[in-house]
Amino acid sequence: MNLKIAVLPGDGIGPEVILQAKKALYAIGEVYNHEFVFEEALMGAVAIDKTGNPLPEQTLNLCLNTDAVLLGAIGDPKYDNNPNAKVRPEQGLLKLRKELGLFANIRPIKPYKALIESSPLKREIIEGADFTIFRELTGGAYFGTKTLNEEGTHASDLCEYSEEEITRIAHLAFKSAQKRRKKLTMVDKANVLETSRLWRKVVQKVSEEYSDVALDFLFVDNAAMQLILNPKQFDVILTENLFGDILSDEASVITGSIGLLPSVSLGEKNALFEPIHGSYPQAKGKNIANPIASILAAALLLEHFGLTKEAHVIYKAVEKAIEYKVVTVDLKPDSKFGTNEVGEFVSNFI
Amino acid sequence: MNLKIAVLPGDGIGPEVILQAKKALYAIGEVYNHEFVFEEALMGAVAIDKTGNPLPEQTLNLCLNTDAVLLGAIGDPKYDNNPNAKVRPEQGLLKLRKELGLFANIRPIKPYKALIESSPLKREIIEGADFTIFRELTGGAYFGTKTLNEEGTHASDLCEYSEEEITRIAHLAFKSAQKRRKKLTMVDKANVLETSRLWRKVVQKVSEEYSDVALDFLFVDNAAMQLILNPKQFDVILTENLFGDILSDEASVITGSIGLLPSVSLGEKNALFEPIHGSYPQAKGKNIANPIASILAAALLLEHFGLTKEAHVIYKAVEKAIEYKVVTVDLKPDSKFGTNEVGEFVSNFI
Ligand SMILES: CC(C)[C@H](C(=O)O)[C@@H](O)C(=O)O
Ligand SMILES: CC(C)[C@H](C(=O)O)[C@@H](O)C(=O)O
Repeated sequence: MNLKIAVLPGDGIGPEVILQAKKALYAIGEVYNHEFVFEEALMGAVAIDKTGNPLPEQTLNLCLNTDAVLLGAIGDPKYDNNPNAKVRPEQGLLKLRKELGLFANIRPIKPYKALIESSPLKREIIEGADFTIFRELTGGAYFGTKTLNEEGTHASDLCEYSEEEITRIAHLAFKSAQKRRKKLTMVDKANVLETSRLWRKVVQKVSEEYSDVALDFLFVDNAAMQLILNPKQFDVILTENLFGDILSDEASVITGSIGLLPSVSLGEKNALFEPIHGSYPQAKGKNIANPIASILAAALLLEHFGLTKEAHVIYKAVEKAIEYKVVTVDLKPDSKFGTNEVGEFVSNFI
Repeated sequence: MNLKIAVLPGDGIGPEVILQAKKALYAIGEVYNHEFVFEEALMGAVAIDKTGNPLPEQTLNLCLNTDAVLLGAIGDPKYDNNPNAKVRPEQGLLKLRKELGLFANIRPIKPYKALIESSPLKREIIEGADFTIFRELTGGAYFGTKTLNEEGTHASDLCEYSEEEITRIAHLAFKSAQKRRKKLTMVDKANVLETSRLWRKVVQKVSEEYSDVALDFLFVDNAAMQLILNPKQFDVILTENLFGDILSDEASVITGSIGLLPSVSLGEKNALFEPIHGSYPQAKGKNIANPIASILAAALLLEHFGLTKEAHVIYKAVEKAIEYKVVTVDLKPDSKFGTNEVGEFVSNFI
């Protein structure tokens, strides 16, 4: 297979971890005779620094015309604590999601056996947990009109949703539930928000086409609690953009480290693969960032193109790295292995 | 002391747990020679059933003219899954918060020694955790304009904040931090939301008056993770309405049960005390609901009026109940004690 992949290393540890994902893909390409052509482009704080624009035209065009996008991480503290910054790295990511129409972000959550002890949660709580979060990604308060009055004393964000936006991701989530344990939990705040009530109504309607899937509802405050009290109750979770942002990061603690979790963002035509962790600027250049989430993002990419066998080789390699404790310090505080060594282990295993 | 207390038992288990809180207050009154006069009124689904209005005029007037409000819980599933219901129990609570100007909801989080094992989190993670969440309660998406188009296919919620709204709760939170470990963590989503950027700016400004308090910022997705990974890092958390709703319920898992946590909501003139759990309709009338959160809400009420000694007697009584395992099934699955027995134990201890 020939694949053209746009690579956006981004900020902070992004470039280091993405390098390891590329190494894994190169190794797969050699062994299984595929050609992966990588083309790098700028996005985020690095793009602002070099071009003034967090998503340069060139980057967007590249992403629109490749088979897939592989993204590192976005964000730089120099923008975070400056509420007056007009241009921010995240705008690049949000614009890319919107322009590529990446309406569904999918995050599988499942603890690794060898890592169960490194979770802050007790073994009996997380052992056997296995669920997937479907987060709507191009709507809600992320993209609604924002205002700030001239005096800078009053601000607003509009959260909006339409029936179509809810319907299309609901279908994806129900289809996924059909292939899993046939349970879908819709998370919202329908006792307060109008958009949540629309979500409930639309999801109820869509559910009529999936009578084999059991549908239930949780308020987001309760869901934040249930994820920790009893994560095994979940199979597929469906929720809007901001709730999904919060809950999927929270859910990462089940696996012991956010450094292990990849996600895929899907549109009608495009797909973007990334680790769910952020740019972790404190770790930049120190060879301590965990590359596994990025390597697994590469595996999700392979699966997306039907290269299931190849993806499983990567899963296996990652499992072995964890089993042999060839892992970074987030997983083993006294580890002598760094980003590079973990990446080497994985690509050598392939 | 003479106190006139409006009691709103509300829905589900509300009446049962509030009864135990009243019993504790009666006992305190007798022993320490205070007169607590309770006046009950309707709010929530019960109020809708009897009057069509989730917050009848009479209830509101009572609350405006008493020293404090003691609230059970609000909510009924018959409204939750009916997105078309025009009147809902929660409207009563939201209106009450707004009319009484209860802009700050304060939730102390601290695990009980005797219950550390019942948390889903490991002992070493939670032992020693001790923090307070300041949640803004009368602004944000809860109270902004909501729209639903005529076809019922498009909905919106407006999240709004003004400098004054942020300033007043920020002062409360900083003052509390000064009396504690002098650390304040502001939680927002300033990389995406305009209102969050206003929060950051205003809180930075207010912080200049509290130079002895260390201020840091966390994005809400990261905060949802940090609360579980390392809750001991927190002292005072300050956040907006919806984030506070989610994070404070999530934080309840640290203590092993949401049935243990009270909160106080403060305005310029009024104060409302309640358990943070919901109406838990499945448990209604079964004598299994945990009354401790409500009893502790009564203790917070006493503290609020300077009756520190009396409040501490209640804390002591609750600790003893937990130590002697006179607790409900949420804390001890094979417990033979119910709501009533736990309440009796506490008021007898007083
Ligand atoms: C960087 C930020 C804008 C982004 C988001 O909130 O969507 C990130 O947290 C994520 O979850 O991908
Ligand atoms: C019942 C509901 C409207 C309420 C809220 O979201 O504020 C509750 O969850 C709470 O936290 O007091």
